[in-house]
Amino acid sequence: MAKDRPPSFKSLLDTAHQLADLSGPVILRHFRKRIKVDNKQDGGFDPVTAADRGAERVIADALAARFPDHGVVGEEYGIRQPDARYRWIVDPIDGTRSFIIGTPMWGTLIGLVDGAAPVLGMLDQPYTGERFWSAERASYMRSIGGKTSRLRTRQCPRIEDAIVATTHPDLFAQGREAQSFERVKRQSRMTRFGGDCYSYGMVAAGLIDVVIEAGLKSFDVVALIPIIERAGGRVTTWDGRPATEGGNVLACGDPALHDAVLELVNR
Amino acid sequence: MAKDRPPSFKSLLDTAHQLADLSGPVILRHFRKRIKVDNKQDGGFDPVTAADRGAERVIADALAARFPDHGVVGEEYGIRQPDARYRWIVDPIDGTRSFIIGTPMWGTLIGLVDGAAPVLGMLDQPYTGERFWSAERASYMRSIGGKTSRLRTRQCPRIEDAIVATTHPDLFAQGREAQSFERVKRQSRMTRFGGDCYSYGMVAAGLIDVVIEAGLKSFDVVALIPIIERAGGRVTTWDGRPATEGGNVLACGDPALHDAVLELVNR
Repeated sequence: MAKDRPPSFKSLLDTAHQLADLSGPVILRHFRKRIKVDNKQDGGFDPVTAADRGAERVIADALAARFPDHGVVGEEYGIRQPDARYRWIVDPIDGTRSFIIGTPMWGTLIGLVDGAAPVLGMLDQPYTGERFWSAERASYMRSIGGKTSRLRTRQCPRIEDAIVATTHPDLFAQGREAQSFERVKRQSRMTRFGGDCYSYGMVAAGLIDVVIEAGLKSFDVVALIPIIERAGGRVTTWDGRPATEGGNVLACGDPALHDAVLELVNR
Repeated sequence: MAKDRPPSFKSLLDTAHQLADLSGPVILRHFRKRIKVDNKQDGGFDPVTAADRGAERVIADALAARFPDHGVVGEEYGIRQPDARYRWIVDPIDGTRSFIIGTPMWGTLIGLVDGAAPVLGMLDQPYTGERFWSAERASYMRSIGGKTSRLRTRQCPRIEDAIVATTHPDLFAQGREAQSFERVKRQSRMTRFGGDCYSYGMVAAGLIDVVIEAGLKSFDVVALIPIIERAGGRVTTWDGRPATEGGNVLACGDPALHDAVLELVNR
């Protein structure tokens, strides 16, 4: 493919589906098996599995064959071609803790940026067969059983009516971060923990109103931004900037609620 | 069926499967729909859905036809024949909060007691098609795709190596309860929230080591006890008594770990 001729959106989205089709079986070979859990960090517990590494390799190899001039950013193997116009931002198992305890709340995240702008995103759950993705102007979900439906966030302008999700209460650093989360939690109708990337899918589906998280990496969130935004929601950092680089992230189904929660977080 | 001739275990287990087969489609009609969420409690948020009520009705009706002399205990419709020798303890949607946010961590719990002793238990997840149940001397799981496998808990005698799950950090009353949970959380390898009844299934599957919860009702736990115990684990209250009446509940995959966590909880 010539470098100066950008690929069609369709070819990019088809590629994302192919990457998920390839990585799913590699990951599932290790799901619910007694796998070796390495520690990446001294002291902490950050499980890295053969599934993670195998899936990232199969994705990177497929991209190198299909779009050799595109960049690839992954958790395990780092960055290839960091200066490329198109960069695929991949997290084979977002939610490794959910993965190792056997629940289906983890997913494979495949995002694509053109410069700094997210072009498309995909969240694949290979065990259930569920898949969420953004098309050019809308987002879709394939449910268990294979039915595909359009995703739309729901109206919910007030935090008092909102369902708030986050992965773990200890995600927030003591002090300002924890206080910001506590304000959102206290004013909300209900808080749920443990959702990992699946919670963002449920924001796009109009079933959760807010996901609030801290300390995310780029590959934890890039794929999720276009899925939620093209379903009607908004995703930014806590200071209202684009969330493509990660950091402290706020995702809301209703843009009016997003404004209200940003104000609450920064009060 | 004559009152003095107890039914075979096979006929009871077959009935449990039939009840789950009947209730699943009733519940799924309401899953991920914009349903009315009633408040059962003033002030609190305790969602009760048409799905809950419809499923409990279909289960109670099927039991009345099949075993008219058996008792039925359900969350929505109360107790029928409370003095019967056999009582079915049913929670159509354990994890209504997970249900209303669209995640598959809820389940239908079907338990049966003979006097005070749990006879069998079933946890059905109709959206994924997963099902966990206890036979007479073993427990089994049907995975997505239909494969049935035997459940076995894993060895993990030390809390330092254990993965601990609970539904929500606010489950524990301030004071002694919260302090007990905090001790378990701090000494464990990892804590996960939000699992609802699915976490108990993962204890039976040898992927989670501890579930610790407070303030459970009988119908939240009866079905789960034989599933975990016949897979090799142990379930009691925090003071080491049978958990059939609910209360503060501790479930461990390794009986040696159960002893250690009970000591830690009551320190």
